[in-house]
Amino acid sequence: MNLRVEFHYDFGSPNAYLSHRVLPSIAERTGVEIHYVPVLLGGIFKSTNNRSPMEQFADVLNKPEYQAKETLRFLMRHDITELVRNPHFPVNTISMMRGAVFAQGKEWEAQYIDALFKAMWERGLNMADPEQIGSVLTEAGLPVAEILAAISDPDVKQGLIDNTANSVARGNFGSPSFFVNEELFFGKDKLRDLEEEIVSKLG
Amino acid sequence: MNLRVEFHYDFGSPNAYLSHRVLPSIAERTGVEIHYVPVLLGGIFKSTNNRSPMEQFADVLNKPEYQAKETLRFLMRHDITELVRNPHFPVNTISMMRGAVFAQGKEWEAQYIDALFKAMWERGLNMADPEQIGSVLTEAGLPVAEILAAISDPDVKQGLIDNTANSVARGNFGSPSFFVNEELFFGKDKLRDLEEEIVSKLG
Repeated sequence: MNLRVEFHYDFGSPNAYLSHRVLPSIAERTGVEIHYVPVLLGGIFKSTNNRSPMEQFADVLNKPEYQAKETLRFLMRHDITELVRNPHFPVNTISMMRGAVFAQGKEWEAQYIDALFKAMWERGLNMADPEQIGSVLTEAGLPVAEILAAISDPDVKQGLIDNTANSVARGNFGSPSFFVNEELFFGKDKLRDLEEEIVSKLG
Repeated sequence: MNLRVEFHYDFGSPNAYLSHRVLPSIAERTGVEIHYVPVLLGGIFKSTNNRSPMEQFADVLNKPEYQAKETLRFLMRHDITELVRNPHFPVNTISMMRGAVFAQGKEWEAQYIDALFKAMWERGLNMADPEQIGSVLTEAGLPVAEILAAISDPDVKQGLIDNTANSVARGNFGSPSFFVNEELFFGKDKLRDLEEEIVSKLG
Protein backbone atom coordinates (compact mmCIF):
# COMPACT_ATOMS: atom_id res chain seq x y z
CA MET A 1 0.00 0.00 0.00
CA ASN A 2 1.01 3.63 -0.36
CA LEU A 3 2.09 4.94 3.01
CA ARG A 4 3.07 8.57 3.31
CA VAL A 5 4.36 9.86 6.64
CA GLU A 6 4.72 13.61 7.10
CA PHE A 7 6.09 15.82 9.84
CA HIS A 8 4.56 19.32 9.76
CA TYR A 9 7.09 21.49 11.53
CA ASP A 10 8.10 25.04 12.40
CA PHE A 11 11.59 25.73 13.76
CA GLY A 12 10.03 27.98 16.41
CA SER A 13 8.57 25.08 18.38
CA PRO A 14 10.84 23.38 20.93
CA ASN A 15 8.57 20.36 20.76
CA ALA A 16 9.13 20.20 17.00
CA TYR A 17 12.88 20.19 17.71
CA LEU A 18 12.43 17.39 20.23
CA SER A 19 10.37 15.40 17.72
CA HIS A 20 13.04 15.99 15.08
CA ARG A 21 15.53 14.37 17.43
CA VAL A 22 13.40 11.22 17.75
CA LEU A 23 12.08 10.79 14.20
CA PRO A 24 15.29 9.26 12.77
CA SER A 25 14.99 6.29 15.12
CA ILE A 26 11.34 5.80 14.11
CA ALA A 27 12.30 5.97 10.44
CA GLU A 28 15.07 3.45 11.05
CA ARG A 29 12.95 1.00 13.01
CA THR A 30 10.00 1.11 10.60
CA GLY A 31 11.93 1.58 7.37
CA VAL A 32 9.65 4.41 6.23
CA GLU A 33 10.77 7.79 4.94
CA ILE A 34 9.45 10.72 6.95
CA HIS A 35 8.72 13.76 4.78
CA TYR A 36 9.34 17.13 6.43
CA VAL A 37 6.65 19.68 5.53
CA PRO A 38 7.46 23.27 6.53
CA VAL A 39 4.47 25.21 7.85
CA LEU A 40 4.19 28.59 9.54
CA LEU A 41 2.99 27.98 13.09
CA GLY A 42 1.93 31.62 13.50
CA GLY A 43 -0.26 31.23 10.41
CA ILE A 44 -1.80 28.01 11.73
CA PHE A 45 -2.53 29.63 15.09
CA LYS A 46 -4.11 32.63 13.36
CA SER A 47 -6.37 30.61 11.08
CA THR A 48 -7.41 28.11 13.78
CA ASN A 49 -7.66 30.57 16.69
CA ASN A 50 -5.10 28.49 18.58
CA ARG A 51 -2.20 29.58 20.81
CA SER A 52 1.03 28.04 22.04
CA PRO A 53 0.75 26.00 25.25
CA MET A 54 3.19 28.44 26.84
CA GLU A 55 0.81 31.32 26.19
CA GLN A 56 -2.32 29.30 26.90
CA PHE A 57 -1.27 28.02 30.27
CA ALA A 58 0.96 30.85 31.50
CA ASP A 59 -1.61 31.82 34.14
CA VAL A 60 -2.56 28.28 35.17
CA LEU A 61 -1.08 27.25 38.51
CA ASN A 62 1.12 24.11 38.36
CA LYS A 63 0.64 23.46 34.64
CA PRO A 64 3.80 25.22 33.33
CA GLU A 65 5.83 23.33 35.95
CA TYR A 66 4.21 20.07 34.89
CA GLN A 67 4.97 20.75 31.24
CA ALA A 68 8.59 21.46 32.14
CA LYS A 69 8.67 18.12 33.97
CA GLU A 70 7.23 16.34 30.92
CA THR A 71 9.97 17.93 28.80
CA LEU A 72 12.60 16.63 31.23
CA ARG A 73 11.05 13.15 31.10
CA PHE A 74 11.18 13.26 27.29
CA LEU A 75 14.84 14.35 27.35
CA MET A 76 15.74 11.51 29.71
CA ARG A 77 13.73 8.91 27.82
CA HIS A 78 15.46 9.79 24.56
CA ASP A 79 18.87 10.69 25.97
CA ILE A 80 18.79 14.24 24.65
CA THR A 81 21.24 16.55 26.41
CA GLU A 82 21.54 19.50 24.01
CA LEU A 83 18.25 21.37 24.49
CA VAL A 84 18.64 24.98 25.63
CA ARG A 85 16.11 27.72 26.29
CA ASN A 86 16.17 30.19 23.39
CA PRO A 87 16.44 33.65 25.03
CA HIS A 88 14.88 35.23 21.92
CA PHE A 89 11.73 33.09 22.13
CA PRO A 90 9.22 33.58 20.58
CA VAL A 91 11.26 33.97 17.39
CA ASN A 92 9.68 35.10 14.13
CA THR A 93 10.35 32.07 11.95
CA ILE A 94 9.03 33.24 8.59
CA SER A 95 12.46 33.59 6.89
CA MET A 96 13.64 30.20 8.16
CA MET A 97 10.40 28.56 7.05
CA ARG A 98 10.54 30.14 3.60
CA GLY A 99 14.08 28.82 3.31
CA ALA A 100 12.72 25.41 4.33
CA VAL A 101 10.16 25.54 1.53
CA PHE A 102 12.98 26.29 -0.91
CA ALA A 103 14.99 23.42 0.61
CA GLN A 104 12.24 20.85 -0.05
CA GLY A 105 13.53 18.22 -2.47
CA LYS A 106 17.06 19.68 -2.59
CA GLU A 107 19.89 17.27 -1.81
CA TRP A 108 20.88 19.48 1.16
CA GLU A 109 17.35 19.61 2.63
CA ALA A 110 18.21 17.45 5.66
CA GLN A 111 21.32 19.50 6.48
CA TYR A 112 19.32 22.73 6.26
CA ILE A 113 16.67 21.42 8.64
CA ASP A 114 19.16 20.05 11.12
CA ALA A 115 21.32 23.20 11.12
CA LEU A 116 18.34 25.45 11.80
CA PHE A 117 16.80 23.30 14.52
CA LYS A 118 20.20 23.22 16.23
CA ALA A 119 20.65 26.98 15.85
CA MET A 120 17.30 27.53 17.56
CA TRP A 121 17.32 24.88 20.27
CA GLU A 122 20.92 23.85 20.91
CA ARG A 123 22.57 27.24 20.40
CA GLY A 124 19.72 29.61 21.31
CA LEU A 125 20.46 32.01 18.44
CA ASN A 126 18.25 34.86 17.25
CA MET A 127 17.15 33.22 14.03
CA ALA A 128 14.66 35.93 13.12
CA ASP A 129 17.72 37.92 12.01
CA PRO A 130 18.68 37.26 8.33
CA GLU A 131 22.35 37.93 9.13
CA GLN A 132 22.27 35.26 11.81
CA ILE A 133 20.57 32.88 9.38
CA GLY A 134 23.29 33.66 6.82
CA SER A 135 26.08 32.88 9.23
CA VAL A 136 24.45 29.61 10.35
CA LEU A 137 24.02 28.55 6.72
CA THR A 138 27.64 29.44 5.96
CA GLU A 139 28.92 27.38 8.89
CA ALA A 140 26.81 24.46 7.69
CA GLY A 141 28.31 24.69 4.19
CA LEU A 142 24.92 25.42 2.61
CA PRO A 143 24.36 27.60 -0.51
CA VAL A 144 23.79 30.81 1.41
CA ALA A 145 23.25 33.30 -1.40
CA GLU A 146 20.80 31.03 -3.19
CA ILE A 147 18.80 30.39 -0.02
CA LEU A 148 18.71 34.04 1.08
CA ALA A 149 17.53 35.05 -2.39
CA ALA A 150 14.82 32.39 -2.33
CA ILE A 151 13.44 33.79 0.93
CA SER A 152 12.27 36.84 -1.06
CA ASP A 153 10.95 34.81 -4.00
CA PRO A 154 7.13 35.22 -4.37
CA ASP A 155 6.76 31.56 -5.35
CA VAL A 156 8.55 30.44 -2.20
CA LYS A 157 6.44 32.79 -0.08
CA GLN A 158 3.30 31.39 -1.71
CA GLY A 159 4.60 27.86 -1.16
CA LEU A 160 4.74 28.44 2.59
CA ILE A 161 1.25 29.97 2.57
CA ASP A 162 -0.05 26.95 0.64
CA ASN A 163 1.70 24.40 2.89
CA THR A 164 0.19 26.10 5.92
CA ALA A 165 -3.32 26.34 4.48
CA ASN A 166 -3.21 22.71 3.28
CA SER A 167 -2.09 21.53 6.69
CA VAL A 168 -5.04 23.27 8.36
CA ALA A 169 -7.41 21.98 5.67
CA ARG A 170 -6.26 18.44 6.56
CA GLY A 171 -7.10 18.96 10.23
CA ASN A 172 -3.97 20.44 11.76
CA PHE A 173 -4.02 23.17 14.42
CA GLY A 174 -0.40 23.33 15.64
CA SER A 175 3.07 21.77 15.61
CA PRO A 176 4.62 19.26 15.98
CA SER A 177 2.06 17.37 13.90
CA PHE A 178 2.35 14.12 12.02
CA PHE A 179 0.29 12.58 9.28
CA VAL A 180 0.18 8.91 8.37
CA ASN A 181 -1.66 9.35 5.12
CA GLU A 182 -4.65 11.37 6.39
CA GLU A 183 -4.42 10.29 10.04
CA LEU A 184 -3.24 13.17 12.24
CA PHE A 185 -1.13 12.70 15.36
CA PHE A 186 -0.44 15.82 17.38
CA GLY A 187 2.39 16.53 19.77
CA LYS A 188 5.67 14.94 20.85
CA ASP A 189 3.69 12.78 23.28
CA LYS A 190 2.15 10.95 20.33
CA LEU A 191 5.39 9.70 18.77
CA ARG A 192 4.82 6.20 20.13
CA ASP A 193 1.29 6.16 18.74
CA LEU A 194 2.67 7.45 15.45
CA GLU A 195 5.16 4.60 15.27
CA GLU A 196 2.49 2.04 16.14
CA GLU A 197 0.22 3.44 13.42
CA ILE A 198 3.03 3.15 10.86
CA VAL A 199 3.77 -0.41 11.94
CA SER A 200 0.10 -1.40 11.81
CA LYS A 201 -0.28 0.10 8.34
CA LEU A 202 2.86 -1.67 7.12
CA GLY A 203 1.71 -4.99 8.56
CA MET B 1 10.46 0.69 49.10
CA ASN B 2 7.17 2.39 49.86
CA LEU B 3 5.32 2.93 46.62
CA ARG B 4 1.99 4.72 46.74
CA VAL B 5 0.00 5.11 43.54
CA GLU B 6 -2.98 7.46 43.55
CA PHE B 7 -5.68 8.33 41.06
CA HIS B 8 -7.14 11.79 41.69
CA TYR B 9 -10.55 11.69 40.08
CA ASP B 10 -13.85 13.48 39.62
CA PHE B 11 -16.85 11.62 38.18
CA GLY B 12 -17.53 14.62 35.93
CA SER B 13 -14.54 13.95 33.68
CA PRO B 14 -15.04 11.50 30.80
CA ASN B 15 -11.26 11.07 30.70
CA ALA B 16 -11.34 10.06 34.38
CA TYR B 17 -13.96 7.43 33.46
CA LEU B 18 -11.75 6.18 30.62
CA SER B 19 -8.76 6.01 32.96
CA HIS B 20 -10.88 4.12 35.51
CA ARG B 21 -11.55 1.52 32.82
CA VAL B 22 -7.84 0.97 32.21
CA LEU B 23 -6.41 1.17 35.74
CA PRO B 24 -7.44 -2.38 36.78
CA SER B 25 -5.22 -3.87 34.07
CA ILE B 26 -2.30 -1.71 35.21
CA ALA B 27 -2.88 -2.77 38.82
CA GLU B 28 -3.01 -6.40 37.73
CA ARG B 29 0.13 -6.27 35.58
CA THR B 30 2.20 -4.40 38.15
CA GLY B 31 0.71 -5.88 41.30
CA VAL B 32 0.30 -2.46 42.92
CA GLU B 33 -2.84 -1.15 44.56
CA ILE B 34 -4.15 2.07 43.05
CA HIS B 35 -5.73 4.36 45.63
CA TYR B 36 -8.68 6.42 44.41
CA VAL B 37 -8.61 9.97 45.80
CA PRO B 38 -11.80 11.97 45.22
CA VAL B 39 -11.22 15.63 44.35
CA LEU B 40 -13.57 18.36 43.15
CA LEU B 41 -12.48 19.25 39.62
CA GLY B 42 -14.40 22.53 39.74
CA GLY B 43 -12.46 23.45 42.87
CA ILE B 44 -9.13 22.55 41.25
CA PHE B 45 -9.98 24.62 38.18
CA LYS B 46 -10.96 27.56 40.35
CA SER B 47 -7.83 27.53 42.47
CA THR B 48 -5.44 26.95 39.54
CA ASN B 49 -7.20 29.19 37.00
CA ASN B 50 -7.57 26.17 34.70
CA ARG B 51 -10.50 25.13 32.50
CA SER B 52 -11.69 21.90 30.89
CA PRO B 53 -10.21 21.12 27.44
CA MET B 54 -13.75 21.22 26.08
CA GLU B 55 -14.13 24.81 27.22
CA GLN B 56 -10.56 25.79 26.42
CA PHE B 57 -10.54 24.60 22.85
CA ALA B 58 -14.19 25.10 21.89
CA ASP B 59 -13.27 27.96 19.55
CA VAL B 60 -10.11 26.37 18.12
CA LEU B 61 -10.59 25.03 14.59
CA ASN B 62 -9.83 21.29 14.20
CA LYS B 63 -8.82 20.72 17.82
CA PRO B 64 -12.17 19.44 19.18
CA GLU B 65 -12.39 17.04 16.21
CA TYR B 66 -8.85 15.87 16.92
CA GLN B 67 -9.66 15.30 20.58
CA ALA B 68 -12.72 13.28 19.58
CA LYS B 69 -10.47 11.19 17.33
CA GLU B 70 -8.02 10.63 20.20
CA THR B 71 -10.94 9.45 22.34
CA LEU B 72 -11.94 6.99 19.62
CA ARG B 73 -8.37 5.73 19.39
CA PHE B 74 -8.32 5.21 23.15
CA LEU B 75 -11.63 3.31 23.03
CA MET B 76 -10.33 1.04 20.27
CA ARG B 77 -6.95 0.48 21.92
CA HIS B 78 -8.61 -0.59 25.17
CA ASP B 79 -11.68 -2.25 23.70
CA ILE B 80 -14.12 0.05 25.47
CA THR B 81 -17.57 0.09 23.89
CA GLU B 82 -19.78 1.54 26.63
CA LEU B 83 -18.90 5.26 26.59
CA VAL B 84 -21.83 7.58 25.92
CA ARG B 85 -22.10 11.36 25.77
CA ASN B 86 -23.76 12.60 28.95
CA PRO B 87 -26.53 14.97 27.78
CA HIS B 88 -26.41 16.76 31.15
CA PHE B 89 -22.70 17.61 30.84
CA PRO B 90 -21.24 19.54 32.59
CA VAL B 91 -22.75 17.92 35.66
CA ASN B 92 -22.31 19.39 39.14
CA THR B 93 -20.45 16.56 40.86
CA ILE B 94 -20.20 17.87 44.41
CA SER B 95 -22.72 15.41 45.93
CA MET B 96 -21.18 12.42 44.17
CA MET B 97 -17.69 13.49 45.23
CA ARG B 98 -18.75 14.01 48.86
CA GLY B 99 -20.19 10.52 48.75
CA ALA B 100 -16.86 9.33 47.40
CA VAL B 101 -15.03 10.89 50.33
CA PHE B 102 -17.38 9.02 52.68
CA ALA B 103 -16.78 5.84 50.67
CA GLN B 104 -12.99 5.97 51.15
CA GLY B 105 -11.86 2.95 53.12
CA LYS B 106 -15.34 1.37 53.24
CA GLU B 107 -15.60 -2.20 51.98
CA TRP B 108 -18.03 -1.02 49.27
CA GLU B 109 -15.78 1.81 48.03
CA ALA B 110 -14.98 0.14 44.71
CA GLN B 111 -18.65 -0.61 43.99
CA TYR B 112 -19.60 3.00 44.74
CA ILE B 113 -16.95 4.35 42.37
CA ASP B 114 -17.82 1.94 39.60
CA ALA B 115 -21.58 2.52 39.87
CA LEU B 116 -21.19 6.29 39.68
CA PHE B 117 -18.72 6.30 36.80
CA LYS B 118 -21.11 4.02 34.90
CA ALA B 119 -24.12 6.20 35.73
CA MET B 120 -22.30 9.20 34.32
CA TRP B 121 -20.55 7.76 31.28
CA GLU B 122 -22.31 4.54 30.31
CA ARG B 123 -25.87 5.58 31.15
CA GLY B 124 -25.67 9.36 30.73
CA LEU B 125 -27.75 10.08 33.85
CA ASN B 126 -28.20 13.46 35.52
CA MET B 127 -26.09 12.72 38.57
CA ALA B 128 -26.28 16.23 39.96
CA ASP B 129 -29.78 15.23 41.15
CA PRO B 130 -29.75 13.61 44.64
CA GLU B 131 -32.83 11.53 43.72
CA GLN B 132 -30.98 10.12 40.73
CA ILE B 133 -27.96 9.40 42.92
CA GLY B 134 -30.25 7.63 45.39
CA SER B 135 -31.74 5.41 42.74
CA VAL B 136 -28.31 4.52 41.30
CA LEU B 137 -27.06 3.62 44.79
CA THR B 138 -30.16 1.51 45.43
CA GLU B 139 -29.72 -0.43 42.21
CA ALA B 140 -26.09 -1.06 43.12
CA GLY B 141 -27.09 -2.46 46.52
CA LEU B 142 -25.21 0.29 48.39
CA PRO B 143 -26.20 1.78 51.79
CA VAL B 144 -28.25 4.62 50.32
CA ALA B 145 -29.52 6.32 53.47
CA GLU B 146 -26.10 6.31 55.09
CA ILE B 147 -24.42 7.74 52.00
CA LEU B 148 -27.04 10.43 51.37
CA ALA B 149 -26.80 11.51 55.03
CA ALA B 150 -23.01 11.67 54.78
CA ILE B 151 -23.24 14.04 51.80
CA SER B 152 -24.52 16.71 54.24
CA ASP B 153 -21.98 15.90 56.96
CA PRO B 154 -19.63 18.87 57.60
CA ASP B 155 -16.67 16.52 58.13
CA VAL B 156 -17.27 14.89 54.75
CA LYS B 157 -17.60 18.29 53.09
CA GLN B 158 -14.36 19.38 54.69
CA GLY B 159 -12.73 16.12 53.61
CA LEU B 160 -13.45 16.92 49.97
CA ILE B 161 -12.15 20.48 50.38
CA ASP B 162 -8.97 19.10 51.97
CA ASN B 163 -8.45 16.41 49.31
CA THR B 164 -8.81 19.05 46.61
CA ALA B 165 -6.48 21.55 48.27
CA ASN B 166 -3.87 18.85 48.98
CA SER B 167 -3.98 17.71 45.39
CA VAL B 168 -3.29 21.23 44.13
CA ALA B 169 -0.57 21.70 46.77
CA ARG B 170 1.14 18.59 45.35
CA GLY B 171 1.13 20.03 41.82
CA ASN B 172 -2.19 18.97 40.33
CA PHE B 173 -4.25 21.23 38.05
CA GLY B 174 -6.95 18.88 36.68
CA SER B 175 -8.20 15.30 36.31
CA PRO B 176 -7.48 12.54 35.52
CA SER B 177 -4.24 12.82 37.46
CA PHE B 178 -1.99 10.15 38.89
CA PHE B 179 0.70 10.25 41.52
CA VAL B 180 3.48 7.71 41.94
CA ASN B 181 4.61 8.92 45.34
CA GLU B 182 5.14 12.62 44.49
CA GLU B 183 5.56 12.19 40.72
CA LEU B 184 2.54 13.58 38.86
CA PHE B 185 1.25 12.14 35.59
CA PHE B 186 -1.58 14.03 33.97
CA GLY B 187 -4.18 12.78 31.52
CA LYS B 188 -5.35 9.49 30.07
CA ASP B 189 -2.57 9.77 27.48
CA LYS B 190 -0.02 9.24 30.24
CA LEU B 191 -1.27 5.85 31.45
CA ARG B 192 1.57 4.04 29.68
CA ASP B 193 4.11 6.40 31.24
CA LEU B 194 2.42 5.85 34.60
CA GLU B 195 2.77 2.09 34.26
CA GLU B 196 6.42 2.39 33.21
CA GLU B 197 7.12 4.61 36.21
CA ILE B 198 5.53 2.07 38.54
CA VAL B 199 7.53 -0.76 36.98
CA SER B 200 10.78 1.20 37.17
CA LYS B 201 10.14 2.05 40.83
CA LEU B 202 9.34 -1.60 41.63
CA GLY B 203 12.46 -2.82 39.85
